[in-house]
Amino acid sequence: MTGQERSEEKSECVSLSPMMEAVPAPPESERVCVFGTGDLGRSLGLRLLQAGYGVVFGSRRPHSRSSLLPHGAQVLGHAAAAQSAHLIFIAVQREHYDFLVPLANQLKGKVLVDLSNNLRKNQYPEANAEYLQSLVPGAEVVKGFNTLSAWSLQNGPSDANRQVYICGESVEAKQAVIAVATKLGFSALDQGFLSVARELEDFPLQLFPQWRLPLRISIGLSAAFFFYLLIRYVIYAYVTQGEDISFRIMVSLANQVCPIVSLIMLSLCYLPGVLASFLQLYRGTKYRRFPNWLDRWMLCRKQLGLLSLGFAFLHVLYTLIIPIRSIRENRTTMFDTTTAWHDDSYLSLGILGFGLYVLLGITSLPSVINALSWREFSFVQSKLGHLTLLLCTAHTYLYGWNRFLSSSTYKWYTPPGYMLCLVLPSVVLLLKLLLITPCVDRTITRIRQGWERGADQRNPKDSQPLIP
Amino acid sequence: MTGQERSEEKSECVSLSPMMEAVPAPPESERVCVFGTGDLGRSLGLRLLQAGYGVVFGSRRPHSRSSLLPHGAQVLGHAAAAQSAHLIFIAVQREHYDFLVPLANQLKGKVLVDLSNNLRKNQYPEANAEYLQSLVPGAEVVKGFNTLSAWSLQNGPSDANRQVYICGESVEAKQAVIAVATKLGFSALDQGFLSVARELEDFPLQLFPQWRLPLRISIGLSAAFFFYLLIRYVIYAYVTQGEDISFRIMVSLANQVCPIVSLIMLSLCYLPGVLASFLQLYRGTKYRRFPNWLDRWMLCRKQLGLLSLGFAFLHVLYTLIIPIRSIRENRTTMFDTTTAWHDDSYLSLGILGFGLYVLLGITSLPSVINALSWREFSFVQSKLGHLTLLLCTAHTYLYGWNRFLSSSTYKWYTPPGYMLCLVLPSVVLLLKLLLITPCVDRTITRIRQGWERGADQRNPKDSQPLIP
Amino acid sequence: MTGQERSEEKSECVSLSPMMEAVPAPPESERVCVFGTGDLGRSLGLRLLQAGYGVVFGSRRPHSRSSLLPHGAQVLGHAAAAQSAHLIFIAVQREHYDFLVPLANQLKGKVLVDLSNNLRKNQYPEANAEYLQSLVPGAEVVKGFNTLSAWSLQNGPSDANRQVYICGESVEAKQAVIAVATKLGFSALDQGFLSVARELEDFPLQLFPQWRLPLRISIGLSAAFFFYLLIRYVIYAYVTQGEDISFRIMVSLANQVCPIVSLIMLSLCYLPGVLASFLQLYRGTKYRRFPNWLDRWMLCRKQLGLLSLGFAFLHVLYTLIIPIRSIRENRTTMFDTTTAWHDDSYLSLGILGFGLYVLLGITSLPSVINALSWREFSFVQSKLGHLTLLLCTAHTYLYGWNRFLSSSTYKWYTPPGYMLCLVLPSVVLLLKLLLITPCVDRTITRIRQGWERGADQRNPKDSQPLIP
Repeated sequence: MTGQERSEEKSECVSLSPMMEAVPAPPESERVCVFGTGDLGRSLGLRLLQAGYGVVFGSRRPHSRSSLLPHGAQVLGHAAAAQSAHLIFIAVQREHYDFLVPLANQLKGKVLVDLSNNLRKNQYPEANAEYLQSLVPGAEVVKGFNTLSAWSLQNGPSDANRQVYICGESVEAKQAVIAVATKLGFSALDQGFLSVARELEDFPLQLFPQWRLPLRISIGLSAAFFFYLLIRYVIYAYVTQGEDISFRIMVSLANQVCPIVSLIMLSLCYLPGVLASFLQLYRGTKYRRFPNWLDRWMLCRKQLGLLSLGFAFLHVLYTLIIPIRSIRENRTTMFDTTTAWHDDSYLSLGILGFGLYVLLGITSLPSVINALSWREFSFVQSKLGHLTLLLCTAHTYLYGWNRFLSSSTYKWYTPPGYMLCLVLPSVVLLLKLLLITPCVDRTITRIRQGWERGADQRNPKDSQPLIP
Repeated sequence: MTGQERSEEKSECVSLSPMMEAVPAPPESERVCVFGTGDLGRSLGLRLLQAGYGVVFGSRRPHSRSSLLPHGAQVLGHAAAAQSAHLIFIAVQREHYDFLVPLANQLKGKVLVDLSNNLRKNQYPEANAEYLQSLVPGAEVVKGFNTLSAWSLQNGPSDANRQVYICGESVEAKQAVIAVATKLGFSALDQGFLSVARELEDFPLQLFPQWRLPLRISIGLSAAFFFYLLIRYVIYAYVTQGEDISFRIMVSLANQVCPIVSLIMLSLCYLPGVLASFLQLYRGTKYRRFPNWLDRWMLCRKQLGLLSLGFAFLHVLYTLIIPIRSIRENRTTMFDTTTAWHDDSYLSLGILGFGLYVLLGITSLPSVINALSWREFSFVQSKLGHLTLLLCTAHTYLYGWNRFLSSSTYKWYTPPGYMLCLVLPSVVLLLKLLLITPCVDRTITRIRQGWERGADQRNPKDSQPLIP
Repeated sequence: MTGQERSEEKSECVSLSPMMEAVPAPPESERVCVFGTGDLGRSLGLRLLQAGYGVVFGSRRPHSRSSLLPHGAQVLGHAAAAQSAHLIFIAVQREHYDFLVPLANQLKGKVLVDLSNNLRKNQYPEANAEYLQSLVPGAEVVKGFNTLSAWSLQNGPSDANRQVYICGESVEAKQAVIAVATKLGFSALDQGFLSVARELEDFPLQLFPQWRLPLRISIGLSAAFFFYLLIRYVIYAYVTQGEDISFRIMVSLANQVCPIVSLIMLSLCYLPGVLASFLQLYRGTKYRRFPNWLDRWMLCRKQLGLLSLGFAFLHVLYTLIIPIRSIRENRTTMFDTTTAWHDDSYLSLGILGFGLYVLLGITSLPSVINALSWREFSFVQSKLGHLTLLLCTAHTYLYGWNRFLSSSTYKWYTPPGYMLCLVLPSVVLLLKLLLITPCVDRTITRIRQGWERGADQRNPKDSQPLIP
């Protein structure tokens, strides 16, 4: 589905626009010009009209006015349109920018807002906005609004896309664009000079940059454990007993890989925070940057946690269908109270752990995060998060139970998967336990309040750890 | 629960308002008048005070001032209040508008903002705002703010209700209202002349207009398949074997209807996109509107998908309780590796399909959509969406497995439900497969970039497919 | 995880800031001063620069400029910085406020914005802002922005944290701060005099105040029913049959406590609305406040409902793992159609009830609520809510089935848990049934539209039940 399709899909809310019968040109308000009468140009024009601006469309053939253009807008030839306003939105594809060259005179001193995007990164040697500036050197080019769509222009800004980034050389030109953005309900942020334009143009082309590393880690872990378990489980059975249990790949093996990867990812989500605390303890200050690898790791904790939740979700489903399958798992039919306690306990721990897991997942939804105070967010993500890790680790330990010491567990001298995956969470929990002992906790709290070891009096007034 | 109750329920966040001890009348700031001292009038007054306006309430008995009125507001008689400000908010029910008639002199040239709503559509022959204008022809009536509640006024605008729609005859009056709305933190959109007022007044009375068609489709499909399966399954057993298996209606039959309806709805969600692509291919341009039926269909794709997810969710629950029931489904106790592969495979495909389904559902939450870039949204809704359809279709094919060719499957010469429901998704997937073949894909991409067959040079500069 | 950690975690989105190469000081725009070069001070400075302000940092050692300070900002000594601007943001910890005392001359008449927070409630005898005012009596102190974090300053306001609360004595000073807030994209709300500062400072320290009562209720109910069932189930079996079934605590008992607590909490969620309606009926008006206990109860309905959903979710998981456990529940192997109907019916009702439950939960997500109109919200929360209660109550009645009349059910003359938990929902449903009978419904609707019994004509014009 392309963006064009998307705008159709989302346009369910645009039902208001046909209401817009006619908005008479506001007498004293500023005029704004829009070049380009495509989806984006028209939507921008409508929005500008609704915000009280006078709108002039620039067109090659101003007399054959399209019926799609918003009522109340003027249509003029390009030159006349350019002269009628100080601010001109260029809602035209880069390939057609050359039509602006002959207009150089009319565009002199005007503010040109480049709204264009590209189809892929590095499509052109320089940013579209820089190319535009080189074509019309007399004008002040401001890059901006390119993260908006026809859809969001028609429906008004919502939470995440209220933010509009702009850049350009001229402060006055940027101020003028910021003023229009504010009146349209957007919040414009000046990102600096025109050299930033390329980065702004790459924005809408992003494809989950934050998710790449976590996804790679999860795929790598899944593959590694899949082959490890395939050998220990399916190939071992075939080699030693000549039994073909390859069908177990689909459910039994998947149901081992999922919980293993989930638990490892969950501990990878909490490990960097623990490491950062120890680093701060060791350095005795919070005012030095973390090493880059730790920074990057910290930035993808949310993604690690959500992927981990995904694997846990699959694990739950795979576990619950066990009794439906025609091939039942072999089960000891012997009954004794100890086994019953063990079974019910690890299942119960798993359920409680998954319940908390889901709670953490819900709490990471953007609109829920926004409704939380600092302390609430910390409480959920740190306290409840580590409790989840504790419950899931205990669930796995209990699952292993008395098999840890039985030699028959170690086929071909290798430990089963659930033992391997217990290493990391155990380490994280132990380190966290160390951190919350009173004496360590006191030091780390002081450091986070701005205290520095050995340099208490150096620069106290500039430290500002307002948020506990 | 009525709106009044709702405002109570939601008012948990209004805890700040009692803090508001006293805001002295701002010396030079504009004065605004509010007629009506009900919930809405008081909340509006408080909000105006907080934004720095001087507020005058108009009351019949200005001397018996209600203790509920916000501190810092003045209370005057209606006539005096009307004279004290240029902008007057009418927070009074339509039935009481006639008290404004004697005030015609004082209201001359004033801007009256009609905030009223009705209890149901078409309650009155004309819109409240038009009625108000007819009562006070000398004033400039602006309809607006009626989608806001006392609650959202007290708590400030949040994402979806930041948007305020207004309409009216006078551009100046509308500009004045837009200015106040902006200062209160809302984003006002001019919708045109006062004749639009009726549509604005119908807004808060909407009851899921987007969901009606998809709901009807799902109910229709459910009923049709329910009776079809009732005949093939329960009545057939009764007629041919004299067996009463009517109890199977509750779980077994429900568990056949749910997945069938779910799969059909999911393909109905992706079919219009595919049809639209073929239409664009056939027409050779993206600049012609789709037929109305296709447009309407496209606009309810999200709702189709979410209903489909609901049915899939019920299917999962119905499947998972199978082993709990006292009556177990008849099962072949024979074991062979092929059956094991088959069983585990279709279960595993179902689980993965459902996992992706849930992911699609989460991604359609408003706050998550807003956090995605164009490319990310397209990727999830198109690529992952079609992958989900593929997995679920494969799950159903595998479920059918070798029963497709066995004549005992066709009771009374009718195919089982899961075969019928495979037709549509198979067609959608085949068409999609055609669309992603390189040569077709290249053409469709060019069309979406604004290229037109046979009319390449017609009007290139106005085409603006900025978003790929 | 502390706030500092949080800001790191969330800072994944701050990737834009390095782009900010250099913003030349805007020629005519206002200058703003920031004291404090910590995370918060720097982020605030960057944001101010991006919004077009000239920014001057006050530093003890202005010549050793930190590389972390945003490009384009000036750094001066405290005295010089204070003189350069009218508005000074104090992004310094309270402990260091005394450095401002010697600057009293330069700060005379300036607006000081106190952004500070404390580590815990009641850390100091007076609010930080009041302390600041006492140190620098010549300045106008405004408390505000303290709910913002370095993170939200860098990323721009989003839905819930767009709202900024301020308070202070001087109206002019507050207007100046509101103006800056608005330009930064925030929506500032004046909360009154400086005495409100303490409440504003307690804001970020809140830990789920709305959830406390519902959590206590759910814990109390869980504990009570746990011990009740422990006695009836485990201890009874031990005393009368000498059987040790203590292992059943983990799953079987938990799976009885969860649904019981869930159903009671769900009815507690709908009971106050029903009581409020009867109170309005009895009083014959909606214009009198509800008693405090009812108000508090109404305000935590959402939390009661969500906790109830959590328990229902655990109940579903506990039920679904029953067949996985090595110890199967005793089951009658006898088969008859009646039992089959009964079993399948109560399971099916439970599934449908849980499906609606989840729908209610999704609808209570902030971003989903915002997208609903009045009528839609009422419909979901009232109509669908009561339907959910009805389905879940019917599910429990059917579960009890023919055991209600069998004396063997009443071990030690006590009723089983599911009977006890049926009392409350049955009462709520009966009362609701009364309320929706046409004659009662008509009266209640009139009352909610503003009608008052016996006082119809008293003050009709001020009543304003705009929202039905």
